Amino acid sequence: MEKNNDRMREIPAPADADRLRRQMAFCLEIDKEKFIGRQTYLSDGVRKENDAEHAWHMAIMTLLLSEYSNEKIDVLKTIGMLLIHDLVEIDAGDTYAYDEEAKKTQHAREMAAAERIFGLLPEDQGSRLKSWWEEFESGDTPEARFARTMDHVQPLMLNAATEGKSWEEHGIHLSQILNRNQETARGSEQLWQYARENFIEPNLRAGRIIEP
Amino acid sequence: MEKNNDRMREIPAPADADRLRRQMAFCLEIDKEKFIGRQTYLSDGVRKENDAEHAWHMAIMTLLLSEYSNEKIDVLKTIGMLLIHDLVEIDAGDTYAYDEEAKKTQHAREMAAAERIFGLLPEDQGSRLKSWWEEFESGDTPEARFARTMDHVQPLMLNAATEGKSWEEHGIHLSQILNRNQETARGSEQLWQYARENFIEPNLRAGRIIEP
Repeated sequence: MEKNNDRMREIPAPADADRLRRQMAFCLEIDKEKFIGRQTYLSDGVRKENDAEHAWHMAIMTLLLSEYSNEKIDVLKTIGMLLIHDLVEIDAGDTYAYDEEAKKTQHAREMAAAERIFGLLPEDQGSRLKSWWEEFESGDTPEARFARTMDHVQPLMLNAATEGKSWEEHGIHLSQILNRNQETARGSEQLWQYARENFIEPNLRAGRIIEP
Repeated sequence: MEKNNDRMREIPAPADADRLRRQMAFCLEIDKEKFIGRQTYLSDGVRKENDAEHAWHMAIMTLLLSEYSNEKIDVLKTIGMLLIHDLVEIDAGDTYAYDEEAKKTQHAREMAAAERIFGLLPEDQGSRLKSWWEEFESGDTPEARFARTMDHVQPLMLNAATEGKSWEEHGIHLSQILNRNQETARGSEQLWQYARENFIEPNLRAGRIIEP
């Protein structure tokens, strides 16, 4: 390791060693998001997706589909928001979109989780990520609107790819899907139209989504 | 669905319906990356990571750690590169870092995969993603150098978190790790120093990495 010891002598000490240590502690902690399961089946129709896979998928979709946003968006911010928006589920767990009981306590559970998890980071970065999460939750900016559209369109795509397996298992009604997707068109009219025509309607016609 | 039919009439037809169809076909195809396993154990030391989880993890790490890059980088491009750089493994499979036989055919297998997978996209986007992949592979730009540093530091972090389980199982020598990480400092001297001191050296002292 002589060569590497030489190299080390050339490196100035980080201005703030504690800063990097906190960043790395956060980076390790978020590994746990890979264990948070969702209700959506992957395209093989066998295994269900986890939160990290879901976020990765939407980040690439945002790279490719941002041209369909109703409003101009900052793509990096939107991707950042999508990458981190489910981290609170490390503590709070995934709340299924159609589980009305669990949804009653969801906000309080997720607020406490955000305090702990983003609090691992140096203050400037923790505040930034927490504010992205809050922005995503409230859905009041162009980036948050588009991110929420992604968060709804991606599982519609996978549910359609598995011939509505998750919808059938849970006996989901069209009204539930439309209710959940009330705001999906706010991020992108074109993507919502595509999702309705290609993901929802064929499964409605096939009886895998219950009317009304 | 009256309300939604009304809404649909307001939407102009996309300028190029085939474009969106190709983008969505790609978005569905890449779901398969979630089935490509790696050799790295997750922090629970039980399940191994898949490519999508790995890419998600590095994308967030880049958001937080880009300040340690030796050179100024375009963070969005670096994240994009990391999100897509393993897609070729959908066809070519994961090649373990220390499998010298498989590495001989790796490039040809991955080139063919890139043609097919990026070829699903509209030409402009397919070319852009393929060029990012090539840039990552050659490692000749600041973004590619930092992305490659992430690609090496993230598994070192997880291997350390699992007390060197993957290193022990494969009987990995320090010389193999240092050889694989010859260029890790090119993206970030500080992160390589951190990884050596916190991830490699404790496992060397504990005998989980074989000397030399």
